Amino acid sequence: VSTSKSGVSRRGEAYHHGNLRQALVTAARDLLKGGDPAAVTLREAARLAGVSHNAPYRHFAGREALLAAVAAEGFEDLRRGLAAALADTKPERRLNGLGQAYIRFAVTHRSDFRLMFGSEVRAALHPELQEAALGAFSLLRDAAGPHDASAVLRAWGTAHGLAHLVANGQVSLEAALGALD
Amino acid sequence: VSTSKSGVSRRGEAYHHGNLRQALVTAARDLLKGGDPAAVTLREAARLAGVSHNAPYRHFAGREALLAAVAAEGFEDLRRGLAAALADTKPERRLNGLGQAYIRFAVTHRSDFRLMFGSEVRAALHPELQEAALGAFSLLRDAAGPHDASAVLRAWGTAHGLAHLVANGQVSLEAALGALD
Repeated sequence: VSTSKSGVSRRGEAYHHGNLRQALVTAARDLLKGGDPAAVTLREAARLAGVSHNAPYRHFAGREALLAAVAAEGFEDLRRGLAAALADTKPERRLNGLGQAYIRFAVTHRSDFRLMFGSEVRAALHPELQEAALGAFSLLRDAAGPHDASAVLRAWGTAHGLAHLVANGQVSLEAALGALD
Repeated sequence: VSTSKSGVSRRGEAYHHGNLRQALVTAARDLLKGGDPAAVTLREAARLAGVSHNAPYRHFAGREALLAAVAAEGFEDLRRGLAAALADTKPERRLNGLGQAYIRFAVTHRSDFRLMFGSEVRAALHPELQEAALGAFSLLRDAAGPHDASAVLRAWGTAHGLAHLVANGQVSLEAALGALD
C-alpha cells in the first residue's frame, strides 16, 4: 500500500470515480497553499495524486474547472465556519459572530479566500461553484435575522472588507475584530 | 516628432529622467488594463514607451518595483476621488459620500484596485507605495469626523468589502450603493 502526498491510500488499482476527483481537488488545494495560483495545474495535481497526467481530464475540462472545484470547497468550508459560529453565538450577537468567523476564515484560508474572491475563476461558468457560494451567502442572509436586505448586504460588506484588508496585511486581525463591535 | 502609445512626445533624444519613469508607469497601467497582471513586464512597458528593454532598469529594480509604482498611482487616484467626493458632500453625509466614491473607484479602476489590494506587490518593500496608500487612508480617517477609530475602520471595511464584491461581480453596483444608506 502506497500513500500519495494528498493522503489517498492506493493499492495500484485505479481510483474510484469520486475518489480521484476528490484526490485531485485536495492536491490542488495543497498546491494553492504555496501562495501562487499559477502553480495549480492539472498536470501537477495529477502528479501529487499519483495518477497519469491524462487522468484529470475524466473529471475536469481544464485548469479553470479544477480551480472552480477548489473555490467551491472553500465556500463550503466558509459556510461550515459560519454555521459553527452561529451555533456558538447568542441571537443578539449573531452579526458580530458571523463577521468574526468570516474574518478568521480569510486569515486561516488565505489562499482559498483569494481564489474565491479573485478573478481567476469565472463563477458564472461553474454551477457547482455558484451553488457553493450561494450556500454560504444564504446562511449569512438567513442568519442575520430581522434586518432588511440593505442591512444584510452592509454587514456582509463590512465582514468581507475587513477580512480582505486583514488577509492583505493592511489591517491587523485584532483591529478588524475590534471594529465589528 | 513621433508620439509613443503612452502619449509622450519624442524627438529621438532620450527621455528626461522623470519623463521616462512616468512613461513606463503609464505604459504599465495600460498593460494592466488588459486584466492580466502577468502581462505587465519591464520589457513590454519599455516597448510601449518606445525605449530599449534595458532602459527601465534606470528607474526600476525589477517588475515588482514597476507594479508598486502603478499601485502607488492607483492610491493617488483613489485619494483624489475621495477628496472630490468630500468637496461635494454635506458634512452629515460624509461617510456615505466616501463609501460611494470608494465603490465607484473599484468599478472604474478594476485592474488598479485588484493590484492595490492583491498579493503581487509586497507593500512593505516599497516606501513610495506605502506613502501613497497612507495618503488615501489618512483622508478617510480624517474626513470621517467625530468617530472613534473602530467606527472609522468599520466604515472603511464596509466600503472596501462592497467595492471588492462589486469589482468581482458578486454584488451589483446599485445594491452596493444602496447598502451604504
